[in-house]
Amino acid sequence: MAKVKKTPRPKAQTPKGFRDYFGAEVTQRAEMLQAIAGVYHRYGFDALESSAVETVEALGKFLPDVDRPNEGVFAWEDDAEGWVALRYDLTAPLARVYAQHRKDLPLPYRRYAMGPVWRNEKPGPGRFRQFYQCDADTVGAASVAADAEICAMLADVLETVGIPRGDYIVRVNNRKVLNGVLEAMGVTDEGQQAAVLRTIDKFDKVGESGVRELLGKGRLDASGAYIDGVGLSDAQAEPVIGFLTARQHDNSGFVEELFFAAMEGDLKKFGRFADIVSTLISDDRESADVHFEAQNILNLATLMRLEEIVGNSEIGKEGVRELDEMVALLTAQGYGPDRIVIDPSVVRGLGYYTGPVFEAELTFEILDDKGRKRQFGSVAGGGRYDDLVKRFTGQAVPATGVSIGVDRLLAALHEKGRMHNVAQGPVVVTVMDRDRMPDYQAMVSELRAAGIRAEVYLGNPKNFGNQLKYADRRGSPVAVIAGEDEQARGVVQIKDLVLGARIAENASLEEWKERPSQYEVPRGELVARVRAILDGTT
Amino acid sequence: MAKVKKTPRPKAQTPKGFRDYFGAEVTQRAEMLQAIAGVYHRYGFDALESSAVETVEALGKFLPDVDRPNEGVFAWEDDAEGWVALRYDLTAPLARVYAQHRKDLPLPYRRYAMGPVWRNEKPGPGRFRQFYQCDADTVGAASVAADAEICAMLADVLETVGIPRGDYIVRVNNRKVLNGVLEAMGVTDEGQQAAVLRTIDKFDKVGESGVRELLGKGRLDASGAYIDGVGLSDAQAEPVIGFLTARQHDNSGFVEELFFAAMEGDLKKFGRFADIVSTLISDDRESADVHFEAQNILNLATLMRLEEIVGNSEIGKEGVRELDEMVALLTAQGYGPDRIVIDPSVVRGLGYYTGPVFEAELTFEILDDKGRKRQFGSVAGGGRYDDLVKRFTGQAVPATGVSIGVDRLLAALHEKGRMHNVAQGPVVVTVMDRDRMPDYQAMVSELRAAGIRAEVYLGNPKNFGNQLKYADRRGSPVAVIAGEDEQARGVVQIKDLVLGARIAENASLEEWKERPSQYEVPRGELVARVRAILDGTT
Repeated sequence: MAKVKKTPRPKAQTPKGFRDYFGAEVTQRAEMLQAIAGVYHRYGFDALESSAVETVEALGKFLPDVDRPNEGVFAWEDDAEGWVALRYDLTAPLARVYAQHRKDLPLPYRRYAMGPVWRNEKPGPGRFRQFYQCDADTVGAASVAADAEICAMLADVLETVGIPRGDYIVRVNNRKVLNGVLEAMGVTDEGQQAAVLRTIDKFDKVGESGVRELLGKGRLDASGAYIDGVGLSDAQAEPVIGFLTARQHDNSGFVEELFFAAMEGDLKKFGRFADIVSTLISDDRESADVHFEAQNILNLATLMRLEEIVGNSEIGKEGVRELDEMVALLTAQGYGPDRIVIDPSVVRGLGYYTGPVFEAELTFEILDDKGRKRQFGSVAGGGRYDDLVKRFTGQAVPATGVSIGVDRLLAALHEKGRMHNVAQGPVVVTVMDRDRMPDYQAMVSELRAAGIRAEVYLGNPKNFGNQLKYADRRGSPVAVIAGEDEQARGVVQIKDLVLGARIAENASLEEWKERPSQYEVPRGELVARVRAILDGTT
Repeated sequence: MAKVKKTPRPKAQTPKGFRDYFGAEVTQRAEMLQAIAGVYHRYGFDALESSAVETVEALGKFLPDVDRPNEGVFAWEDDAEGWVALRYDLTAPLARVYAQHRKDLPLPYRRYAMGPVWRNEKPGPGRFRQFYQCDADTVGAASVAADAEICAMLADVLETVGIPRGDYIVRVNNRKVLNGVLEAMGVTDEGQQAAVLRTIDKFDKVGESGVRELLGKGRLDASGAYIDGVGLSDAQAEPVIGFLTARQHDNSGFVEELFFAAMEGDLKKFGRFADIVSTLISDDRESADVHFEAQNILNLATLMRLEEIVGNSEIGKEGVRELDEMVALLTAQGYGPDRIVIDPSVVRGLGYYTGPVFEAELTFEILDDKGRKRQFGSVAGGGRYDDLVKRFTGQAVPATGVSIGVDRLLAALHEKGRMHNVAQGPVVVTVMDRDRMPDYQAMVSELRAAGIRAEVYLGNPKNFGNQLKYADRRGSPVAVIAGEDEQARGVVQIKDLVLGARIAENASLEEWKERPSQYEVPRGELVARVRAILDGTT
């Protein structure tokens, strides 16, 4: 007789690299997304929700992180459509949406989008294959006013979700300046340009000396492997290093020199920036705000330094002018160098973007896994990408935008203790007498009608201890107890679980010993008395 | 020489069956989801967001719609995990989540979830392969109090999102009653039981006579194809018909008879329901509310009729008792038969659920594509499914829940004119002089700081007419105009576009002719004057 093969039980497990989010994790993210959407909306951006599935053809392969070129998408073959895939970001779908619907959309088209994106990467600790993005982009606006607007909006978003001024900085760079640097260096070979770009992208990891090595002969990396260099001479590499460190070159005394010159009204040194300086220092800002002035001067010094490095390159000069113009626009709106600065060390995505590039960093320190202090780092980035729509239509359409890493922002707020981990549990009406279920249901109805989160215990009511354990597990502030005796007397027992927990923790405190955490109230006062406990007015 | 083949441009097109959502479509759905989440939360349900991707093994094949057995999922093979797929609903993932995390979850576990689900169906008009669901489920509560709670919550949800009492009805059925009917009929063969279930599922489409034919010899369907019947005799089929029409059998005079008996206090006829009737009619409800009483009596008459049909079947009697208990619990909380009724004609998902089954229907009439009146129909459904978690753990875990069709609910609100299609556009500050961009940016900053949605025109400003066309397309209430002349005089022009549009429509009205839609205001009064237009207090 053939044996009947039993199907084994399925494993209850998310696929690797995916996870579930519970309770406050979900609602806190939803609240943050809503707050961000509010800012985007006030800036005139309209919501867009594109489908999660796109044709592979439409998605293309334009991930902004050039250091992960092999990173893939989740794709499968559809009977009707051929190869389709889950979106890996919200920008590629925007290009498709704009190309598809451009006749019905306003020009410029400002849109925001939020939702999960999927990356078919090797999962690792804290590295997920599904995560949220929250983007805002302007399509069809060539002016850097659009880029400046997005930087200002980014600052507003951060302050709206609870990152105060001083705890973040938006750094701005420009791809055109780099192109100018390469032009001035005489690096015209596309392959070599790409190699320089890939090297620069490692600046965050390997630092100035690392980039110097990688631009030259090569470098032994941490794993012991030798990485071939681009093959530039030290002299050739110098302008690239100069570009990357243009903001940090104050150790030369240049910034100090400019600063004191500005303070003394000696504006000749500022060349064509003299007018801007005169505006900045004549500002009736409090004289104590030296840091602010110094940052302003540092912005200008950086611009001057960049202008020097790009030499006669037209594209390079255009890049410097764009940075200059963005700073002027932002300053006019009150977004000074305490919030937005020029910093060519921002290299993330320089290979992807075509003009201004920006990144928001949180500047406060946290402790890493090993207990070492470090800055929290980047939570948002973006820039101008003028070629994405062209793929579809053949016509260049200027576009610029930002993507906010919502999960990292939430983590930052938790680190700073600005978010409560535990949501308020419901009031639990316990079940003393199964036949009186309608009465218990009536109690929670009344509580809910008063806007109070409440539920009847719906597990097996036999073991009353389990009911209280349940209330505890739910983080319930109050349990309601009403048995036969209470019903006969028209009362209910109210158990203040928050107070009870405090008493349990500090049993010695006389004040609390005298306050009972469980007491009887008339049935008719149930809602009012529970409300009093929740409001802390008992 | 080999010709270089040019890659053709990608098509800018969503895959078939997918679509994009713009502006108010997105925000209105977000607001509705938030409102629903608020009700769920007040009932003690906690948020859960599971991953969109599951292993095919974990998902299983348990779609509630038994008339579409071939409906598939979007699946692909993952290097690390084998076959994975996009979730097709929110219930299958809940079973996996509960099995995976049960040690850390409270028991019972009440959770809500909302988000897109994907079905690999043949796309058709108005039939999408990605759509939103919004579910609430209770896992680990065997009592029908959990089912009753979900019905009450469903009613609250509908009223919260703008469907008033009277415009909806929640119908409740119970799979156990049907099992009892089959048992009483002597249909014990599993294949035949399944055939009866499949037939019943077509009740909505083919009606009583159609089901009668399909239970018997068979039926010629609308396409001319002959559908084989189950092969029951007319007499055998009768109890099934009796079950399906148990609520509608009032034409026999039975309900009238009971109603008048109740009014006269003659409760003998109600058998074991006599007590309930005496409670119901002694209620100090306004005597005018005859409809309400009649519905109560109809509920009871339906129960009595079902009790008769299931005969001595234990499972059938249990089903009737459960319906009875749900009605009692709901009535005690004020959810009377004007909102929740017993109706065995609810057959959707009877093959999937194991106990109570419910469906919310909107009862108001709309015009269909052909201009015919019809009821709007179902917007939510659910029931008890006690076997889903067992697949993973081998242990039966009772569960019950509801799924709300958010997109249908939104459509219903639009049909009823309860939702405005057009969101408020931003105030548009036009660009008369490109060099004055910082001034224009300062204006929108001030407006935004006052909470007013505002933007600077960021397209090419050369053609001023295009700027006003843009404002029009955005649905802007106000355009701000400030050229050289205005700047010199410290004023701005305000153009009231809402008023302008009204004047254009009704140019004859004297009242409006006298009110200019464009006027000059001091620069310092910009925000106040725009605010006045938005508030309608000019």
